[in-house]
Amino acid sequence: MREVFQQSLREVQERLVKIAELVEDAIENATSAFGNSDVAIAEKVIDDVEEIEALAAELDLHAIDILARQQPVASDLRLVVGALRMSASLERMADLAQHIAQLARYRYPESAIPKGLTKTFVRMAALDVEMAAKLVELLRTQELDVVAEIRDLDDDLDELHAKVFEKVLSDKLANNPTGVVDATLASRYHERFGDHAVSVAKQMQFFLSGSLD
Amino acid sequence: MREVFQQSLREVQERLVKIAELVEDAIENATSAFGNSDVAIAEKVIDDVEEIEALAAELDLHAIDILARQQPVASDLRLVVGALRMSASLERMADLAQHIAQLARYRYPESAIPKGLTKTFVRMAALDVEMAAKLVELLRTQELDVVAEIRDLDDDLDELHAKVFEKVLSDKLANNPTGVVDATLASRYHERFGDHAVSVAKQMQFFLSGSLD
Repeated sequence: MREVFQQSLREVQERLVKIAELVEDAIENATSAFGNSDVAIAEKVIDDVEEIEALAAELDLHAIDILARQQPVASDLRLVVGALRMSASLERMADLAQHIAQLARYRYPESAIPKGLTKTFVRMAALDVEMAAKLVELLRTQELDVVAEIRDLDDDLDELHAKVFEKVLSDKLANNPTGVVDATLASRYHERFGDHAVSVAKQMQFFLSGSLD
Repeated sequence: MREVFQQSLREVQERLVKIAELVEDAIENATSAFGNSDVAIAEKVIDDVEEIEALAAELDLHAIDILARQQPVASDLRLVVGALRMSASLERMADLAQHIAQLARYRYPESAIPKGLTKTFVRMAALDVEMAAKLVELLRTQELDVVAEIRDLDDDLDELHAKVFEKVLSDKLANNPTGVVDATLASRYHERFGDHAVSVAKQMQFFLSGSLD
């Protein structure tokens, strides 16, 4: 019975790692589609996100099943309850990757990136991908140090987000409302992606240390 | 023991109703601040949202405590697990009300609403407030019919969201990048508010009927 229980908990962790890996692929592909106006990759992302949603729903059922049958306590309970929240955040990260891919598809064959913001969005994309990779590492290794690294990356992302608004509100994009809308939304999607990555990291911290700070 | 358990479950429901009522107040005040450029109300919303976050965190601890001590099953388990998800969605709704209030405060004493979009945002605000009120009703009465009403309101909201983009991308707002940014963000906040209301409604449906469809 104890062995079955330990196996169920390992499965929670493995499923979280798997979903996080797919989120990493999704954001890598979405930002590549956005940067290169590649509509084929954009469509692949949109399909892949459905798989992530299905896996997150399965993980939820698995976690609820553990709660119902095995009555976990202490750190085991924190992992199972945390998994329900982490799956919701990972799903939202996948949705945001999908939104970025959709922006690329809407504007195709034009670029969704207004002039003068190319480098900024390349850096935001790199930060998002790195955060997703760090999440995979955190979920796999359960090393508490990785949490701080993810928070630092999110701070960098927030700075770039503020920079996009500065640029968008300057004169340079006057007469280009489409560019203003696209940059506003894309930047917001990147910023929210980072926020959800931090939420997942905080849940892992709570599981590992019992503390949220 | 059974009596204690029933009381704990009633408390879950009561806490959800309380948080939803505060979210209703927050969105009502936020959209009023946004529509009337009222910076005092905007600041009140920003403060009130902190209380909502604290109540949501308390509800989470209460729900985790029930899971740990009372091992609920079947619909009781669905309520407690659902409460963890609903509290996260209600908290996000409060955040979105806060974002709307912040837009009003940033632009003060100017209006954050670009010309030609006043009526659309008044309608979006009315829909958001109505959805929040319906959520309170659903959580209090547990009447399954209310779920469909909330979904219908969300469809109306999505239509208005599409309309804002149409307007923003038309010539009328050329040379007004601030207006384009504000309208883009505000409309997105309203749309997300509706999506989270639907998420909460779906969780209640799952609790009440055991089915997600």
